[in-house]
Amino acid sequence: MTQIRGCYNFAMKVSELGEFGLIDLLAKMTNSSQDKQLLIGIGDDAAAWYGDTSVQLATTDSLIQDVHFSLDIISWGELGWKALAVNMSDIAAMGGISRYVLIALALPGHTEVESVMEFYRGMIELAQQSGVAIIGGDTSSASLVTIAVTVLGSAQNRDKHILTRSTARPGEQIAVTGYLGGAAAGLEMLTKRLQFDSEATAYLRKAFLQPYPRTSEGQLLIEQGIKAAIDISDGLISDLGHICKASQVGAWIVVDDVPVPSAVKANFGEKSLQLALSGGEDYELLFTGSAEAINKVRAVASCPVTVIGEIIADKKGKVTLVDKKGSPFNLSKKGWEHFTT
Amino acid sequence: MTQIRGCYNFAMKVSELGEFGLIDLLAKMTNSSQDKQLLIGIGDDAAAWYGDTSVQLATTDSLIQDVHFSLDIISWGELGWKALAVNMSDIAAMGGISRYVLIALALPGHTEVESVMEFYRGMIELAQQSGVAIIGGDTSSASLVTIAVTVLGSAQNRDKHILTRSTARPGEQIAVTGYLGGAAAGLEMLTKRLQFDSEATAYLRKAFLQPYPRTSEGQLLIEQGIKAAIDISDGLISDLGHICKASQVGAWIVVDDVPVPSAVKANFGEKSLQLALSGGEDYELLFTGSAEAINKVRAVASCPVTVIGEIIADKKGKVTLVDKKGSPFNLSKKGWEHFTT
Repeated sequence: MTQIRGCYNFAMKVSELGEFGLIDLLAKMTNSSQDKQLLIGIGDDAAAWYGDTSVQLATTDSLIQDVHFSLDIISWGELGWKALAVNMSDIAAMGGISRYVLIALALPGHTEVESVMEFYRGMIELAQQSGVAIIGGDTSSASLVTIAVTVLGSAQNRDKHILTRSTARPGEQIAVTGYLGGAAAGLEMLTKRLQFDSEATAYLRKAFLQPYPRTSEGQLLIEQGIKAAIDISDGLISDLGHICKASQVGAWIVVDDVPVPSAVKANFGEKSLQLALSGGEDYELLFTGSAEAINKVRAVASCPVTVIGEIIADKKGKVTLVDKKGSPFNLSKKGWEHFTT
Repeated sequence: MTQIRGCYNFAMKVSELGEFGLIDLLAKMTNSSQDKQLLIGIGDDAAAWYGDTSVQLATTDSLIQDVHFSLDIISWGELGWKALAVNMSDIAAMGGISRYVLIALALPGHTEVESVMEFYRGMIELAQQSGVAIIGGDTSSASLVTIAVTVLGSAQNRDKHILTRSTARPGEQIAVTGYLGGAAAGLEMLTKRLQFDSEATAYLRKAFLQPYPRTSEGQLLIEQGIKAAIDISDGLISDLGHICKASQVGAWIVVDDVPVPSAVKANFGEKSLQLALSGGEDYELLFTGSAEAINKVRAVASCPVTVIGEIIADKKGKVTLVDKKGSPFNLSKKGWEHFTT
């Protein structure tokens, strides 16, 4: 412990250290390398350990009122769906299938029972579509709605690999499922009450409020030999940065190749690319692999799969943006991190 | 769903329904009876399902600043210990062994990094003593400290039973491990800044701030054939009421037989019994069984085991208090329930 303590200023605030600095610190403190069953502890999308016949996975994520969501924008039903979806997405990003859910729900006493039921209906809708059972939880009172969801899942086979952040290798291509920027554009549309045509409005609402976890695509990635993946929650640049740090590699992205939905391009113009690169919350899978493996994934996936860049050996931990001519591309906002401003 | 909806007033507030009413409602909504692997869903101390070779257990519990704890009273290290202990206690109450922990931690940005480290040190201390690994989590910003802990565990053997709330039978004796009332007395001492001698002060502080989960005792209960148990978190009367409702039985308690620690008796006089009966947070195990089974538990347990009453067939769902002469005993406060006032 002394070793870790030495690196930090005693009076440092969490806001100065930042979310990712805090996670690094806690991962060091809780070093679980002595646990022989444990495959992956703190620092990836989900924790993983050896069960008797399969790899077990677990992840937890909180949604806090006025930090992660506003009830002015999201309905209780959508909130229930999303609280489950973002956790299932973490299991999907490891190549696992979600199985059981526990929900710790804190609510103000004046919340209407019907609202809580609506929240559960939204969650149950996604759970039933996905073969997931809600098995436990905890309710308590609080001044703001606070939802902590834990999802347990498993990878199909103890002998097969799982997808991690630390297994990207130089020379591999970088690809994403689906489209990026829709969720951030949806948030902006809802907060600024922007008016678009009904098709774009419906698309952007859904992208932000009802993301669908890429569970079957995660399975496909494993089957086709992909090793490294993450789900895009913080934003493309930020999440690719997590892969680069964990894998000790660098990466470049051709910004013109990033797939942006037409509803975003048509209504957000020049800002579209920023939404796609650092907006976050799209819950698409970002992964790396050989051109051959990615082509195989594309051939069988039911969603678009787009190559957007390459993993490189130098500039370790860094993501470089270039345009289609190979010239550097500058972007200010880099993704969402808690605590820092 | 329509059926469930029919029972509730649309405009009813969560505070009118109460915590336990809300849990009942959610248990009905999330009815997981179609899941063949699932043994126990919402409504017991922990959820339980069949793993490949053992029964798997999971529980989640939240601690919210100024609802469950005040940083004026509890140190960050004690908070870390307690957040883990209360969840491990739920696993112990099913007869399981805790194995893995996930922590969703929400903090104000101005929190000192040293405080977060102290919180983790407290949790790691209990985890290391108990062979539990901290494998994952989530950090985010919030105006109040909010801690949601999920503990995963397992029962030793797929073929053996686990302890549940629904298996108490008329004629069985009711027993508790350890002493009751220490935690509530400790809370009162700390909030009202009461001054006692150093031994009592240390005992009461520890009872409230550093409960020790009764994991090995839970194992013993299973080995000796006990079927029904719960951990005392809400208070003896309230938690025995949970057993009575789930088992469709009644219960009476001889209040004079309830084991109250001498540090409580000496300093809280007539109020001692109320603290022991409805104070909560002692995290002792409350269980039922034959006199023979309870005697066997007492013979091997390293803590006191005290018979305090009996399960009866009538007055289903109700707990009746009597004194040693068999006369009715009245007590106003019945235990802690969220939302209701």
